[in-house]
Amino acid sequence: MARTSAGGSPWRTAPDRAAEREEKRNAVLHAAAAAFAASGYHGTSLDDVAARLGVSKPTVYYYGSSKDELATAVCDRAMLAILEAMEGDTQASALAQLQHLLRRYAEVMTTDFGRCIPMIRDVHIVGLDKNLRERMGRIDQRIRQLLTQGMEDRSIAGCDPKLTAFMIAGAMNEIGRWYDPAGPLSPQLIAEKFINQLTAGLAPR
Amino acid sequence: MARTSAGGSPWRTAPDRAAEREEKRNAVLHAAAAAFAASGYHGTSLDDVAARLGVSKPTVYYYGSSKDELATAVCDRAMLAILEAMEGDTQASALAQLQHLLRRYAEVMTTDFGRCIPMIRDVHIVGLDKNLRERMGRIDQRIRQLLTQGMEDRSIAGCDPKLTAFMIAGAMNEIGRWYDPAGPLSPQLIAEKFINQLTAGLAPR
Repeated sequence: MARTSAGGSPWRTAPDRAAEREEKRNAVLHAAAAAFAASGYHGTSLDDVAARLGVSKPTVYYYGSSKDELATAVCDRAMLAILEAMEGDTQASALAQLQHLLRRYAEVMTTDFGRCIPMIRDVHIVGLDKNLRERMGRIDQRIRQLLTQGMEDRSIAGCDPKLTAFMIAGAMNEIGRWYDPAGPLSPQLIAEKFINQLTAGLAPR
Repeated sequence: MARTSAGGSPWRTAPDRAAEREEKRNAVLHAAAAAFAASGYHGTSLDDVAARLGVSKPTVYYYGSSKDELATAVCDRAMLAILEAMEGDTQASALAQLQHLLRRYAEVMTTDFGRCIPMIRDVHIVGLDKNLRERMGRIDQRIRQLLTQGMEDRSIAGCDPKLTAFMIAGAMNEIGRWYDPAGPLSPQLIAEKFINQLTAGLAPR
């Protein structure tokens, strides 16, 4: 893991140290996400996270100040990954753009990071953390916006954007609760089936 | 509240006492549901429940042995109320029967009792309580059964019953998270809009 600067000096440069710190923070977040996904928020301790990394608890504390902070950071990454899918092909219909966003949303919900989202809402941390609330709000706003846009470009049927966005978020977030990485369904297949179902509806066409 | 037996004796009969106990247990469950719905599981104490009833904490303890027990009982009532809607008009199409069940499901999720369902899942009590798990499983099985039946009677389009049931449950349970009794939408309107959206889908017909 230790790096030396390009010139071969045994003293690492500031950018090297920053990169190493970032790499270690990443490793701690991955281990925390895996621990939360496996054992739930209440069932996970910083000792478990440390054990997954083969380091001491103080080392974990150095990269995450508390269990809450780690859980919040894990969810934050998941939400950022969903938000990345906002920038799609803006030439496509609003329905196609929404499907693109939801495909990513569903896939993220099957990752260890995404599976922490329903968990963290459970312990009311979202109620405490402004960043998470802001990101959740941005996902919600984007879904509503695409629904409204879709009614204009006629790719989406008449609907109540607010309620439909709530419905979609409920369906998506739930994936994080029941998804079993050892189960037979791939994240891609789950995403595809959810999107098709939401698009086509229950009634035959 | 005190009752006397029909004969006018000052000693209450055993059925009277049982009815009174039941009535008081009901009052405690209603107060507990209201407290949980207002302040969340972690934000509610048995003192709050007692204060709502104007009784002492030991009195609350007499009718509910712990906060967990009360929360479990509150959710149990909500699930029983959903399960009651299983017995609909069996001559109707499977889609109509499913809509009937979901209308009830959505409405129950807007009550103080229903709003405790997402909350209790958060604190992993479902993982501990066999009855709640069994009832949740029965709701899930019934939805899957109606989806399968609907594909046979052609009232429902081809779908994956398991994933679609998960999707529906996610959308329904979410109502308990965002519903605001002080908001502009009635439970009936929310139920109607959710069911129409799930039935019709996003794509125009």
